[in-house]
Amino acid sequence: MEAEILQLLTRLYPICRSLTGDGNRETLEIIREHIPLDIKEVPTGTKAFDWEVPKEWNIRDAWVKHAGKKVIDFGNSNLHVMGYSTPVNEVMSLEKLKKHLYTLPDKPTAIPYRTSYYKEQWGFCVSHEECEKLEDGEYEVFIDSELKDGSLTYGELYLEGKTKDEFLVSTYICHPSMCNDNLSGVVLSTFLAKELIKRDRYMSYRFLFVPETLGSIVWLSRNEDTVYNIKYGLIATCTGDDGCVTYKMAKNEDALINEIVVKSLQDSGVPHVLQDFYPWGSDDRQYSSPGFDMPVGSLMRTPYRHFSEYHTSLDDLNFVSADNISDSVDRYIDVVNIVESNKTYINKNPKCEPLLGKHGFYNIAGGQKKPEVLDAIRWILSLSGGDNSLLDISKRSGMEFYKIAQAAKALRECGLIEEIQQ
Amino acid sequence: MEAEILQLLTRLYPICRSLTGDGNRETLEIIREHIPLDIKEVPTGTKAFDWEVPKEWNIRDAWVKHAGKKVIDFGNSNLHVMGYSTPVNEVMSLEKLKKHLYTLPDKPTAIPYRTSYYKEQWGFCVSHEECEKLEDGEYEVFIDSELKDGSLTYGELYLEGKTKDEFLVSTYICHPSMCNDNLSGVVLSTFLAKELIKRDRYMSYRFLFVPETLGSIVWLSRNEDTVYNIKYGLIATCTGDDGCVTYKMAKNEDALINEIVVKSLQDSGVPHVLQDFYPWGSDDRQYSSPGFDMPVGSLMRTPYRHFSEYHTSLDDLNFVSADNISDSVDRYIDVVNIVESNKTYINKNPKCEPLLGKHGFYNIAGGQKKPEVLDAIRWILSLSGGDNSLLDISKRSGMEFYKIAQAAKALRECGLIEEIQQ
Amino acid sequence: MEAEILQLLTRLYPICRSLTGDGNRETLEIIREHIPLDIKEVPTGTKAFDWEVPKEWNIRDAWVKHAGKKVIDFGNSNLHVMGYSTPVNEVMSLEKLKKHLYTLPDKPTAIPYRTSYYKEQWGFCVSHEECEKLEDGEYEVFIDSELKDGSLTYGELYLEGKTKDEFLVSTYICHPSMCNDNLSGVVLSTFLAKELIKRDRYMSYRFLFVPETLGSIVWLSRNEDTVYNIKYGLIATCTGDDGCVTYKMAKNEDALINEIVVKSLQDSGVPHVLQDFYPWGSDDRQYSSPGFDMPVGSLMRTPYRHFSEYHTSLDDLNFVSADNISDSVDRYIDVVNIVESNKTYINKNPKCEPLLGKHGFYNIAGGQKKPEVLDAIRWILSLSGGDNSLLDISKRSGMEFYKIAQAAKALRECGLIEEIQQ
Repeated sequence: MEAEILQLLTRLYPICRSLTGDGNRETLEIIREHIPLDIKEVPTGTKAFDWEVPKEWNIRDAWVKHAGKKVIDFGNSNLHVMGYSTPVNEVMSLEKLKKHLYTLPDKPTAIPYRTSYYKEQWGFCVSHEECEKLEDGEYEVFIDSELKDGSLTYGELYLEGKTKDEFLVSTYICHPSMCNDNLSGVVLSTFLAKELIKRDRYMSYRFLFVPETLGSIVWLSRNEDTVYNIKYGLIATCTGDDGCVTYKMAKNEDALINEIVVKSLQDSGVPHVLQDFYPWGSDDRQYSSPGFDMPVGSLMRTPYRHFSEYHTSLDDLNFVSADNISDSVDRYIDVVNIVESNKTYINKNPKCEPLLGKHGFYNIAGGQKKPEVLDAIRWILSLSGGDNSLLDISKRSGMEFYKIAQAAKALRECGLIEEIQQ
Repeated sequence: MEAEILQLLTRLYPICRSLTGDGNRETLEIIREHIPLDIKEVPTGTKAFDWEVPKEWNIRDAWVKHAGKKVIDFGNSNLHVMGYSTPVNEVMSLEKLKKHLYTLPDKPTAIPYRTSYYKEQWGFCVSHEECEKLEDGEYEVFIDSELKDGSLTYGELYLEGKTKDEFLVSTYICHPSMCNDNLSGVVLSTFLAKELIKRDRYMSYRFLFVPETLGSIVWLSRNEDTVYNIKYGLIATCTGDDGCVTYKMAKNEDALINEIVVKSLQDSGVPHVLQDFYPWGSDDRQYSSPGFDMPVGSLMRTPYRHFSEYHTSLDDLNFVSADNISDSVDRYIDVVNIVESNKTYINKNPKCEPLLGKHGFYNIAGGQKKPEVLDAIRWILSLSGGDNSLLDISKRSGMEFYKIAQAAKALRECGLIEEIQQ
Repeated sequence: MEAEILQLLTRLYPICRSLTGDGNRETLEIIREHIPLDIKEVPTGTKAFDWEVPKEWNIRDAWVKHAGKKVIDFGNSNLHVMGYSTPVNEVMSLEKLKKHLYTLPDKPTAIPYRTSYYKEQWGFCVSHEECEKLEDGEYEVFIDSELKDGSLTYGELYLEGKTKDEFLVSTYICHPSMCNDNLSGVVLSTFLAKELIKRDRYMSYRFLFVPETLGSIVWLSRNEDTVYNIKYGLIATCTGDDGCVTYKMAKNEDALINEIVVKSLQDSGVPHVLQDFYPWGSDDRQYSSPGFDMPVGSLMRTPYRHFSEYHTSLDDLNFVSADNISDSVDRYIDVVNIVESNKTYINKNPKCEPLLGKHGFYNIAGGQKKPEVLDAIRWILSLSGGDNSLLDISKRSGMEFYKIAQAAKALRECGLIEEIQQ
């Protein structure tokens, strides 16, 4: 899988994405080569709660020339132009130009990432080093961009399962050439979906590829009546760097998704960090707003804002690896595996233990050794009075979830337990 | 404020207070120079639950003479006479006298504080050192006291607020010349009331200046029908020594007053000690008896019984300072500030975040820095589904209460949140 | 008591017990010399939930001879024969014999304990050392045992108290010559019963002496309608070794028996270990199966499986002591003492404190010392609004249960509190 991951990552990297525009469409079309994404267009002016879809933004070229030579060139990095910059074609002094230049003095080699979605202006982002080199004099400033009625574009994939209950994976596509934030999330979502398409699913799964904030707000406003099917959700972001696996909790601390992710990480043996919820960050803000209160956490590696390359040109192809993204896919699969198997059973012989030998289980002679599966069986029989899911049983017993799930399968097959509908 | 505190403390110190009597009236009259105290008289024989107001006790003079010289003199310290001592005027041997002398062998320089409210007897308290010096021989013993029908005196101040819900501050006035226990509490209550009189109040405040135990019992028996307005209460005692700020919890561990005091102390950055409730101590015993179960804690410095000067002449003007009492007033004000602002709001745009710029908030460009007030705003919007008070939000966010309260004010003013009645 | 304990232990040790058979009857008859046990016989073929009483097993003799000399002799240790071995009388090669020999290579001097209740076969258990010495050649193999219709035998003792609520002590009698597991539990139960017979009891007590697993299953199947009287239960096992007192919790973590045992151990000052429940072990498995969910813990010294002598001939008379068993009886008595006194009272003067002097309590002068009993009295009065049992009060106060119970007795006698029915 790593080779495919690397290929997709490399192909998406140079595309100029934003809140809207052709770069987003191109990105979604490429993803559609992997998974049957439904691509939606939402026209400029569409209301979404307190918000409204703005004009569509596209850019063809941009540069700053001094003495006939390009000193800043959009062709080298799409981060050089502030997102949603208005067109400009003007000669001006360095002094005037500098009012439109953004740099990061404490990261002198990094081009910052800036946008101005809701205030019409233009700007260039450059490394502080390059900015310092600019000499006094006249500068030709050119941005060939366009702001006009169009639409906001997003992708959606629904994988139907046996139940209408949904697992949401939401990722954002609006960031231009930056890899951990958030091509890593886009690529992870693509390959996770690809894997789930192949499977026999109990849950239904919904994947969203939306521009951050407004994209999830627009989606929520168009799906108010059915979002209540979503029982679990994860934001896929920052999944490609070398840092420790990090889970940022869903807002409701008791949400089952929190229990499940924590247990899956414990079972994996992978070192990991748990972050309490905080109401900034990514689209979990919208999903968990009080009018929705959806149980959505974020399963990442180093979280946004916690790595120094964050929102700069340093978050490039070298900062992430296909191995890390592939490993993150495994973490998501671990979660899915628990979600798929976490049923509640009832012991059909609730009074005393059954005589296991009678039911096709080997007979345990009165010796000193006892196989671990027998422990799992006893935990399940003992705790399956109707109140405990397999997850509850695996937590109480301290055993890995998959061992409990395997023992439950054996018990179910010989009729000793039966699934109950909760 | 410190100068005024010192002045009041010094003026009240020499007065001989007790369960009843003119010393208490004089004390309350002096306090009335600062705040418009209502002084109540409850006649001897009045029933109060299991109790009854006893005879009033007054004392004019007392001494013990040996060889014509006063060896114990009430004029030097009112602690020399056991409170409620019956009159005596008799010549007796040292041996007989000693049956009426109380000393503290392990604190040889301290005059102990003793009373005998419910058994008629007389006694003198002296330092162990002085007692040891008494020579064999005849002693003239004289107590010019009087026990007769009269009344129990207490002071009450009610400051009306916008709501009938009350905050009770209860302090006790029955201790004679001792400063930490409890002139410090009396003086603190006076200056806290003086401050609150000036303020625009949401809560109503009630201040009680009562003799300990019987005073609060009498007050409760006369106000059974309205005590249920009291939502928060603090016992003001031992607030003047150099020790660490200490909060003794209200009996019901989940009481809001406990949460509020703890948060106010955390926010203040002041080192502090939390004590679990125990059913001895001061009038919190009566307020939290099972028939009332009022949420009353004790906000102190070194608690009663925990300092070695406790209930002796060593608890004098040197043991406390006006600075400490003034600092304690600030601790009480911190609590009041939370109580006054701890409302519950509902987010008027519960579905997704509002577009802050539209509502008069500055627009946050897509940069890297984020002002702290934006964190507070997001916490409030995220948690204001109707279940969380500002205190809950400040606890969950880990932010100081006042920052959450300020952000809530801004949000309320631009109509993004609205107070709900709980 | 230690001498009597030692005598009973020594007398029971050599008897060959099993799931059924005359050894069990003999054991119960000896116990009946101490307590008026009711001995029950349950015929072969009787159904008990998923189980059925098997044929009764008895054995008269068994040995293996080589060159005319006994190399394994049941007369030396009844562990030499696997429990429920079918009869055999045959000459065979060492190779064939070895298929029926059980040893413990990692404990070379120990004879293992094995049974085969539900598969008809025969076997000998020997130390690994002895097994290694066996020379090639012909062996005479003889087991004079019998499997035929008969019955399962168990003993029961019911001690009626003032209430129908029961305290169950269950121990198992099926292990042959092993002392900690479980003659120690059998002997402890006998002497605990002997002590309780003498007492004036509030609770009713039920003692069961059953073969493990099937015995408790059979008993439950015959008493389904009345087991709900059982409010507390303990499994008596492994109570004689030198190890630390260990309490294995009842399955329901909030069960009152857990609170009581933990408090009794804390109060005792005895070092102790708490084990969370796990669904293997002894008859707590049956009592706490989901169809019964009885609150049954296990109060032991070193738990089964945790000592290396477990289920071998090394668990002999040297491994336990009468002192340890006697000390374990004291631990059980401590639990019983709390259970007997753990009532809930209501303060008859709920509004403010009563004036203790009026009610026959000494008067506390306003001094500095305060007797501990006054603390206990105040805790009880303060917390007896109807929600708190004496156990709750002793936990909240941190005081030993017996001190709270003594103070409650005094308060009850002078009418200040009254028992309430919960």
